[in-house]
Amino acid sequence: MANSKYEYVKSFEQPDVLLPNTWIVVRIDGRGFHKLSDRYAFIKPNDRRALDLMNAAAVEVMKELPDLCIAYGVSDEYSFVFHPSCQLFERRSAKLVTTIVSTFTAHYIYQWGTYFPSTPLQPPYLPSFDGRAVLYPTARIMRDYMSWRQVDCHINNLYNTTFWTMVQQGGMSNTDAERELQGTVSSDKNEILFKRFGINYNNEDEMYKKGSVLYRQYQLEDPKPESRSRHRDDAEAPVDESKTSKSQQDKLRKLRRKAQVVVDHVDIIKDEFWERRPWILSGKPGKLPEA
Amino acid sequence: MANSKYEYVKSFEQPDVLLPNTWIVVRIDGRGFHKLSDRYAFIKPNDRRALDLMNAAAVEVMKELPDLCIAYGVSDEYSFVFHPSCQLFERRSAKLVTTIVSTFTAHYIYQWGTYFPSTPLQPPYLPSFDGRAVLYPTARIMRDYMSWRQVDCHINNLYNTTFWTMVQQGGMSNTDAERELQGTVSSDKNEILFKRFGINYNNEDEMYKKGSVLYRQYQLEDPKPESRSRHRDDAEAPVDESKTSKSQQDKLRKLRRKAQVVVDHVDIIKDEFWERRPWILSGKPGKLPEA
Amino acid sequence: MANSKYEYVKSFEQPDVLLPNTWIVVRIDGRGFHKLSDRYAFIKPNDRRALDLMNAAAVEVMKELPDLCIAYGVSDEYSFVFHPSCQLFERRSAKLVTTIVSTFTAHYIYQWGTYFPSTPLQPPYLPSFDGRAVLYPTARIMRDYMSWRQVDCHINNLYNTTFWTMVQQGGMSNTDAERELQGTVSSDKNEILFKRFGINYNNEDEMYKKGSVLYRQYQLEDPKPESRSRHRDDAEAPVDESKTSKSQQDKLRKLRRKAQVVVDHVDIIKDEFWERRPWILSGKPGKLPEA
Amino acid sequence: MANSKYEYVKSFEQPDVLLPNTWIVVRIDGRGFHKLSDRYAFIKPNDRRALDLMNAAAVEVMKELPDLCIAYGVSDEYSFVFHPSCQLFERRSAKLVTTIVSTFTAHYIYQWGTYFPSTPLQPPYLPSFDGRAVLYPTARIMRDYMSWRQVDCHINNLYNTTFWTMVQQGGMSNTDAERELQGTVSSDKNEILFKRFGINYNNEDEMYKKGSVLYRQYQLEDPKPESRSRHRDDAEAPVDESKTSKSQQDKLRKLRRKAQVVVDHVDIIKDEFWERRPWILSGKPGKLPEA
Repeated sequence: MANSKYEYVKSFEQPDVLLPNTWIVVRIDGRGFHKLSDRYAFIKPNDRRALDLMNAAAVEVMKELPDLCIAYGVSDEYSFVFHPSCQLFERRSAKLVTTIVSTFTAHYIYQWGTYFPSTPLQPPYLPSFDGRAVLYPTARIMRDYMSWRQVDCHINNLYNTTFWTMVQQGGMSNTDAERELQGTVSSDKNEILFKRFGINYNNEDEMYKKGSVLYRQYQLEDPKPESRSRHRDDAEAPVDESKTSKSQQDKLRKLRRKAQVVVDHVDIIKDEFWERRPWILSGKPGKLPEA
Repeated sequence: MANSKYEYVKSFEQPDVLLPNTWIVVRIDGRGFHKLSDRYAFIKPNDRRALDLMNAAAVEVMKELPDLCIAYGVSDEYSFVFHPSCQLFERRSAKLVTTIVSTFTAHYIYQWGTYFPSTPLQPPYLPSFDGRAVLYPTARIMRDYMSWRQVDCHINNLYNTTFWTMVQQGGMSNTDAERELQGTVSSDKNEILFKRFGINYNNEDEMYKKGSVLYRQYQLEDPKPESRSRHRDDAEAPVDESKTSKSQQDKLRKLRRKAQVVVDHVDIIKDEFWERRPWILSGKPGKLPEA
Repeated sequence: MANSKYEYVKSFEQPDVLLPNTWIVVRIDGRGFHKLSDRYAFIKPNDRRALDLMNAAAVEVMKELPDLCIAYGVSDEYSFVFHPSCQLFERRSAKLVTTIVSTFTAHYIYQWGTYFPSTPLQPPYLPSFDGRAVLYPTARIMRDYMSWRQVDCHINNLYNTTFWTMVQQGGMSNTDAERELQGTVSSDKNEILFKRFGINYNNEDEMYKKGSVLYRQYQLEDPKPESRSRHRDDAEAPVDESKTSKSQQDKLRKLRRKAQVVVDHVDIIKDEFWERRPWILSGKPGKLPEA
Repeated sequence: MANSKYEYVKSFEQPDVLLPNTWIVVRIDGRGFHKLSDRYAFIKPNDRRALDLMNAAAVEVMKELPDLCIAYGVSDEYSFVFHPSCQLFERRSAKLVTTIVSTFTAHYIYQWGTYFPSTPLQPPYLPSFDGRAVLYPTARIMRDYMSWRQVDCHINNLYNTTFWTMVQQGGMSNTDAERELQGTVSSDKNEILFKRFGINYNNEDEMYKKGSVLYRQYQLEDPKPESRSRHRDDAEAPVDESKTSKSQQDKLRKLRRKAQVVVDHVDIIKDEFWERRPWILSGKPGKLPEA
């Protein structure tokens, strides 16, 4: 019995291959995490367990997909970055996005009990995530995307830290705290924290202030004096990369699998981070750290 | 501290709204389930536990998203169908697809232990799924898609049943069984099963032969004598639907939530299935079954 | 000398194949025709020469592309409709749209002198057109698109006829006429025309009131009593069409070339037009009129 | 009379905005120019009149659209390049492509008589063009695209020059000439031309060997010793450009309109062309040449 009569329906599937030689950022976001954080009693303003669980799931995604060169997480969102030379799944958008979303979800659910041992999941209210792919044509713009997320992390964390301190330690109502914070700038919030509660925001946990940066660890390089040189490389490197053969790509993938995925809480806005870890922008594995 | 300097990166996100008034099929597939079924020792040719787990996860997806009007599952794949009138997430493709993939994955992982109590998951080898959306402009073509999957189910199940019976009961090597089956048609396989092993394929489990059909249960209607009438409705119904107000849609959604999601193993190729359940193609909830 | 070093750039071209079995409307619009109609002193509210030139160019497009089944023009816009079964240029969007835009422009420029013998073109101010493709999943919605354009034609023509009569025959300033017409409904405008100027709008030229409808002429059929029957056909016809072989399609194309393309000024909102000319929705050529 | 009943059809138009900060190449090709060149008796291998007409039409496109920074033409094709900072028509693909195709066609038809005074157009066989947009993420890759076209021009012209010399001067049949040229490399063809016909290919018309390069003329700059510096600029320039206000863009557009569009026949593969005309890659107008 042949299936030919109905097979014409296959022709309705449309191609969704992403533009070659372009940075691919897959961003995932928790679905309805505002409600969810209430249901599972997440600690405000930052629940260490929830963030560690996010990071643990993201590390597994990085390990599963060696084509990823960096990831950045804050709150209930994570951004995963594929290098312009990436050919995974022929760069099909839906395939890339759903693989990341599903792998992340699987590990998040699986490891929930490790991070929330006394707060079991309550079906059908399970955590889930949506996602999308965005293209950035140059390293400069991809870095601006990452900077955007890290600045957002800072703005939100300073606000949330101040708000919840006013509520939790200052005994204010949510509405009163919200009203007082309306229209304030960073220095105002720093002052509220310091003068009223003796809290120096700079001493807050780096993870809360900077978010989490995931990358493969190789030997750090000394920052170059002519600091802008990196961008030049970037403008050309992808072209050659795109022509690497399948076997070369498999080799690169194996090398990347050998590197450890680290979770860091550092500034990724300034050049230093990228200059000391040139493998992220170049897509070429560095030297493994000596044992 | 404003974030305006980097916010321009938001403009790189491209719209992915799906064509209005068109059937949306989101199909998900298990990633690497061939290897996975070995690792977790799935029973061949059909592992009841694995299929029940697929169905359990799919039921949760149907409950979570009342805009879905039918779903069909076979092996490690599931197709979820949104009605042309669906406005969920403004019909954004990535949002629809990732929500389904993530919700399905979450429930699959969460309920694994229920269906495989003695086979715990072995991280990092967790099951995961990819997915994509395909558009079908008319009910006729959407039904042809469903028929295509059900015919495929039949073809594969007849082959697999015969193959594994030859190996498991007949003591043949995989290679020998494969060689003998090459070029055979359905009647040949039926004969092998019956003559050599006394197995009447018709008596095999409906779930294995037909796959699993999920839909919301209302009172069945009598099949109409003028059987083609349904398609006419279909050609026009979507237009009015698309103009239903947001509040009307919310009302429809609530009504749909009240209906039970059933798992059925029936023929969806012939007209009868659709004619007795007109709410699937019309998108309008039927009458709830009397208690 | 090989060109392989640079050929990788070809991979950046992205597919733009339009969804199968869907109506394709290519709509073109004059670029800056407001200014252009001043420069070439088009007569207000309707310049017969300009409309005849539009129609002449559109007829050539219809002749050049037998896959087109109907076209509708009003003012400086034209909508060309491909049947769902159309496979021309593998349904590549840019190819379909640019071929129509370029062919239309070529004939418009070439025939300008015939319709405007005493108003030569003044380079670089040549007329040009932009265009885009829009998909409609069912005949019902495609017809609603056509109705939308024809209603628009009526609304604009009634307004323009009244406005320019008030200015040209009534001696009012543009501003005064505009102000008086603000907020009026159709019956108000009809009354102004009739009571002040003795003009019965119904007697105006059909071309101005209805726009121009282009189609291939076959023997008209009697309207069916059960008038909705057409839509049922439509819901299924495309499926079979899509499976017609290449040679069958070539044959259909030849048959269509034999039919005369006519320019009509009739109502396309009601069912009658479509029922008497079933070949437009079915995509199957009718009987050629007897000589 | 309102038009609201049908206006919902507008929602079927899908956005086609091109990725920001990316080079846009709109390539147009003559439709059926093989046949057309026979019908209008184009001279082989190169018809000066036909190429001059192509260039004349392309110059008008460049003048009409100051956002274009360079164009390259060969045979019956033309590539028009928009800078990454281009915001014309909000970067809508169909609008950009059809505007270029229609403007080009209009001028090609209008000026036909100037270049072919004794060969009038024979309707309905009018020349027309199709087109498409392709995105290139970096200046390096856009330049590789341009190099690809120029290498293609060289390969084809050397072949055609040799072939037609063998036929026209050597009295060979088309088939014999084709057979002899099969498998030959450049040096073989050069030798045939020189030894048999005394033709030094290097002395052929630059327009035939290099194609036609169109750009706005400003004062040439001295080539920089550190030749790679240009690419660095490129990697960053677009970002700032994208943030230029609408009024700044209008100002840039006015400045560009003042520059003369020149038709050149030069090498665009080597760096020199681009280094001496930095305004092409930077998108910033240079100094107008002194009178």
